[in-house]
Amino acid sequence: MIDRETTICAIATPPGTGAIAVIRISGPEAFPICSKIITLPKSLSEYPSHTVHLCRIVDKDEVVDEVLVTLFKSPRSYTGEDTVEISCHGSLYIQQRIMELLLRHGATLAQPGEFTLRAFLNGKMDLSQAEAVADLIQSTSQASHKIAMNQMRGEFSKQIQQLRQQLVHFASLIELELDFSEEDVEFADRNTLRENLVQLISQIEQLTDSFQYGNVIKQGVPVAIIGKPNVGKSTLLNTLLNEEKAIVSEIPGTTRDIIEDTLNIGGILFRFIDTAGIRHTSDTIESMGIERTLSNVQKATIILYLIDPLESVDAIREMIATLPLQKQQFMAIVINKTDRLESMEKQKIMEDIRQHFPYPIIPVSAKNKINIERIHTFLIECIKSMKHNESSTVISNIRHYEALTHAREAAMRMLEGLNTGLPNDLLAEELRQVLYYMGTISGTITTDEVLGNIFRNFCIGK
Amino acid sequence: MIDRETTICAIATPPGTGAIAVIRISGPEAFPICSKIITLPKSLSEYPSHTVHLCRIVDKDEVVDEVLVTLFKSPRSYTGEDTVEISCHGSLYIQQRIMELLLRHGATLAQPGEFTLRAFLNGKMDLSQAEAVADLIQSTSQASHKIAMNQMRGEFSKQIQQLRQQLVHFASLIELELDFSEEDVEFADRNTLRENLVQLISQIEQLTDSFQYGNVIKQGVPVAIIGKPNVGKSTLLNTLLNEEKAIVSEIPGTTRDIIEDTLNIGGILFRFIDTAGIRHTSDTIESMGIERTLSNVQKATIILYLIDPLESVDAIREMIATLPLQKQQFMAIVINKTDRLESMEKQKIMEDIRQHFPYPIIPVSAKNKINIERIHTFLIECIKSMKHNESSTVISNIRHYEALTHAREAAMRMLEGLNTGLPNDLLAEELRQVLYYMGTISGTITTDEVLGNIFRNFCIGK
Repeated sequence: MIDRETTICAIATPPGTGAIAVIRISGPEAFPICSKIITLPKSLSEYPSHTVHLCRIVDKDEVVDEVLVTLFKSPRSYTGEDTVEISCHGSLYIQQRIMELLLRHGATLAQPGEFTLRAFLNGKMDLSQAEAVADLIQSTSQASHKIAMNQMRGEFSKQIQQLRQQLVHFASLIELELDFSEEDVEFADRNTLRENLVQLISQIEQLTDSFQYGNVIKQGVPVAIIGKPNVGKSTLLNTLLNEEKAIVSEIPGTTRDIIEDTLNIGGILFRFIDTAGIRHTSDTIESMGIERTLSNVQKATIILYLIDPLESVDAIREMIATLPLQKQQFMAIVINKTDRLESMEKQKIMEDIRQHFPYPIIPVSAKNKINIERIHTFLIECIKSMKHNESSTVISNIRHYEALTHAREAAMRMLEGLNTGLPNDLLAEELRQVLYYMGTISGTITTDEVLGNIFRNFCIGK
Repeated sequence: MIDRETTICAIATPPGTGAIAVIRISGPEAFPICSKIITLPKSLSEYPSHTVHLCRIVDKDEVVDEVLVTLFKSPRSYTGEDTVEISCHGSLYIQQRIMELLLRHGATLAQPGEFTLRAFLNGKMDLSQAEAVADLIQSTSQASHKIAMNQMRGEFSKQIQQLRQQLVHFASLIELELDFSEEDVEFADRNTLRENLVQLISQIEQLTDSFQYGNVIKQGVPVAIIGKPNVGKSTLLNTLLNEEKAIVSEIPGTTRDIIEDTLNIGGILFRFIDTAGIRHTSDTIESMGIERTLSNVQKATIILYLIDPLESVDAIREMIATLPLQKQQFMAIVINKTDRLESMEKQKIMEDIRQHFPYPIIPVSAKNKINIERIHTFLIECIKSMKHNESSTVISNIRHYEALTHAREAAMRMLEGLNTGLPNDLLAEELRQVLYYMGTISGTITTDEVLGNIFRNFCIGK
């Protein structure tokens, strides 16, 4: 699958017509291939690295375009290989013609992520940094951008590397003990090893704990708005999104489809899920909607439970009992239409609910856009409370989460083994497991299949 | 409207997410503004022109991206001004953040085409070359690309410049005569002037004649498929386009909308117009369709008149009489369903039609895709015959066409005036008119309004 002898090319700018487009060529033949199609007095390799040259792209006698050509000499390039970037006029026709010319002169079409894959294979970055490149390009909010940027700059890699380094030392001592197994010596101090393992497990847990936060930040925080039919869920969603997305009508049960939309609040992306009203119904389509609502409640990080001011405490209790709530979920009771109440009456209703339920209470008017910023504040506070430590590393990649979980399990078994006097060869096996899983994160240990899975999701040209 | 003191910035790559995006900054403050947001040991202006630098974009403490920065020092840039190109990760979020940073530090958002406008104002190209940049970006076929590329490279400008130069010489001589008008001297040789004018008019006519070709090449050659209802027009269109675009049914009169699609044959873009069948009808909607068909026939460069093998010569004659045919149009009679005929029968039908009508005859089967390449050949031959001379300059811009037409008219009046002994001051006025119109093409003579109209249609970032 991985062939670094070829020279690859791809359009690196977004697809379509624009002022300019950039075509990237990387590999051992990048300079000779490009030299054949451009008009410069010298061969490209004779110019200094990191210089730009105005020239023409020609196909025999025909001038295809006037372009800027930039060259990067190995190893001072993104991929670590000789690389050329052609900045051409952004016509689709010209982009295609130049690609055809490159292919005709011996370049091959790059696979998705192949430039970054080569950067990894050439040691320009480790695997978790390479994965962060794709996350960075996909990032749509300040929070997801920050996580990806930290990971790309190697914060996470450094931490994993340090954790692994300590263990490598012990591993070599234990392997040594195995060599001298008949003499019953103990090179590795068991107490220090135990302390190190406890510390390792705690640090891994800090990282895996951050995944819940990292993952919702990356994907967008799912927020479910639930409540009885006609309580104003669609109106609340519209008010939050500030546009007429959901169909709002006076007929209870209008919303059957689950409408999803996103909103950036304070640099965090929230995905709002509008849901069918929950009630007993004989309408098959509507009850399918309710089933889906309940399953969406389960997936939501935050639930906004919208009620009418006139709803009884018993009705609220009954509804909450129906919900498949999870321990790590956040919920607020949002009382709608409170602008119709007298101040005293409103206070009384809120007090009543507060006495019976442990959830924050937010009185609003969805229709008249009153107190909506309280919902914003609640959403942001929920997310902030998920992140235990402002400065610590956050992981957002499920592959890293799984590798860390496996590493932690092996470390736990080893710790247990140390306490119960497990034989050295079994201890050594567990230690190898820990090292293996930690190694897969940075790509010290990897397979073509793993690489294939990772880079398949990249865009072409990166 | 035109302010060259500002420093402008824009995203120059197509809108959307991609591996990389390029942001362009041009103007007197390009280097100082960029220096404020990037991490390089020295100020940008201290690096040599045409060099590339890996660095970070920072917003106070926050790293926004790792980017490549290329600098071009005035006058060695596209605009002729100091220019910076930032090649960043192609995330929409990052593109926006960098643009915000640039604006915050004093850059202003570029208007459509403002980079090219500045290139024109700074003498990097003339107006017709600037116009060709937009055409080049929009070009979708080899033929339209070639016309735009020649114009951008200055072929047309050179020709206009030469024509104008000869006249400038005469103009100065005639102005001199006016100064000495009381002495009745003749500095400008009237015979040479007459010869020059004749030559000028002939050369202008060659250019204006090429406009019909240039314009259809640029816009796509309009081809109308006409015929009686149910003769297979939609099937032929589908076969030509190789996809199920039009709704095909057995009910006569199915196609009421005029469906337009494009096809690249031999490097030329053809725009196919499917039309409602032409027949007498009481259906209001359908008769509106027929009216539109006839108006489309008028606009078409090429007409494919599709008939059934059983249609009588009289019926064909009647149909052709209905058509608002133009002198410069091309038409072929395409006989459909000829695969159902015996060879002898087919020959007889073709012979019959050939005797009565001067149009090429193409027997096909639209449904079974027989002989479709004959239609391709016919289309290409029509276009080839429009272009009188393979190597001559082609104009495709209506502004140029109109300026040349005005120049030609003034030149004709002057020629006439020379023959009828028009007074010198009136001759001089006509000559000034010719020079004026020629000058508007290259932009030697221009107004803010003209520039506004031209650059309004550019994309932002160019």
